[in-house]
Amino acid sequence: MKLTVIGLGLIGGSIAKDLRHHSFVSRIMGVDLDNHHAEQAKTLGLVDGLETMGKSIEQADIIVLSTPVNAIAQLLPVILTEMAPSSVVVDMGSTKQLICQSVEKHSRRLHFVASHPMAGTENSGPEAACLNLFNGKPVVICEHEKSGAREFGVIKEMFGVLGMRLIFMSPEEHDLHAAYVSHLSHISSFVLANTVLDIEKNNSAIFDLASGGFESTVRLAKSSPKMWAPIFEQNKKHISDALSAYISHLQAFKKTIDDGHFANAAKLMEQANEIRRVLLNMARK
Amino acid sequence: MKLTVIGLGLIGGSIAKDLRHHSFVSRIMGVDLDNHHAEQAKTLGLVDGLETMGKSIEQADIIVLSTPVNAIAQLLPVILTEMAPSSVVVDMGSTKQLICQSVEKHSRRLHFVASHPMAGTENSGPEAACLNLFNGKPVVICEHEKSGAREFGVIKEMFGVLGMRLIFMSPEEHDLHAAYVSHLSHISSFVLANTVLDIEKNNSAIFDLASGGFESTVRLAKSSPKMWAPIFEQNKKHISDALSAYISHLQAFKKTIDDGHFANAAKLMEQANEIRRVLLNMARK
Repeated sequence: MKLTVIGLGLIGGSIAKDLRHHSFVSRIMGVDLDNHHAEQAKTLGLVDGLETMGKSIEQADIIVLSTPVNAIAQLLPVILTEMAPSSVVVDMGSTKQLICQSVEKHSRRLHFVASHPMAGTENSGPEAACLNLFNGKPVVICEHEKSGAREFGVIKEMFGVLGMRLIFMSPEEHDLHAAYVSHLSHISSFVLANTVLDIEKNNSAIFDLASGGFESTVRLAKSSPKMWAPIFEQNKKHISDALSAYISHLQAFKKTIDDGHFANAAKLMEQANEIRRVLLNMARK
Repeated sequence: MKLTVIGLGLIGGSIAKDLRHHSFVSRIMGVDLDNHHAEQAKTLGLVDGLETMGKSIEQADIIVLSTPVNAIAQLLPVILTEMAPSSVVVDMGSTKQLICQSVEKHSRRLHFVASHPMAGTENSGPEAACLNLFNGKPVVICEHEKSGAREFGVIKEMFGVLGMRLIFMSPEEHDLHAAYVSHLSHISSFVLANTVLDIEKNNSAIFDLASGGFESTVRLAKSSPKMWAPIFEQNKKHISDALSAYISHLQAFKKTIDDGHFANAAKLMEQANEIRRVLLNMARK
């Protein structure tokens, strides 16, 4: 099978790497608007060749769309229209409502599978691509009943090769839950980094004190703004609600400290400790 | 040399393990108010024997005080008074002002070294103790000029055996900077866990979606409330200021989303990306 990857970053590059490694595809074409990324992907051997958008989508059996989500919503209807009749296109976007809406009435809707593999890292670009990024991780599939049986079958097989577990939900459910379990973590991390950088701007040596705890909490602050600004735009309502909830919880925690009610602070921390059990249960699944 | 460790958790247990491994001490006595922890430490071989507080401090050459910070401030003056004249006591507390004040006028102040090894994890208790926890990490030493030359020499050698880099600052500086680079990360993580647990309380399956990003951001939410409530109490003022700054930054970020100014959100994220360079520079030191 011939694969075209549009958007040769961490996700697109890693899929190319894995699918080649497992001989799931025979030829990989790549497209990236960023010429530097495109050339890097070629040099790194992630793709066999760089093509124009038009040519690469005409020739592909599978098209993986792994650009920022604003570009996905713009490109998807065009790709569906122009690709070969037997092709299937799958997106990797971190939002699902707007993307699904962009092709809701498309005459070739059957040829699209809406997905979100929950497997990013804070790194970006073709050089961040790595083998086994997806292995054991979940992938959310939305509206699979709107995809053709054959088309969904091909993509299911592809995620199987990547080692992913399929989870089904509606685009609305996805965007709500992603706001809490993914998008909010990124904002809390970006903002923590800014708060500390701001206070310590004249004293960068202080970061010498930053231990592993600080590093893991700000890890996501290294993430790409080009990828994340469009996610925040497309999931604006849920993210704003998630931030309001987070700020309220922070204010309540601060109040226990300001009022000297440290037993209450301890109670809030005990509640938070529950996350250990929850995540452990999930890991055991 | 004979070592007494008071507080046989992650930090105390790991120090015992490392110092025995490097043959820096010949005998290790342990004290813990929690009988279960004390017995575990014995069973795990972290200590050679359990002793009463009185006996163990009379017989020790070095006393490591690794209890929660409220207990450190209470125990330290008593230990200084009752320990053998040639002993030295070093604390491991995450706050320094109140602890240093507790023995400021003590006639044996020379026998105390105030320290904070920046090397925790989210785990606690004797079972979390591990070799090499401290290797390559910084340890803050406060008011070393108030410690005796011989006493400071012994502790410097001990931290050398643990592989730690010494950093000197005043208790005031320590508590201010620790509020930002350590304590605030813990609160942001505790509160993120509570926010998400609260929203998803009827839907725990949703955590199946939680990817590595979420897990690293909430890792510190697994930390021990017994350890952290007293830290927040002792560093109340700085932590409250740090939380105010964090909440303001969050509100500013939320405003860019609510107002639809995603280019401004991207700018804030670019500023946050700076943390990558800062942490990398520190790692190269």
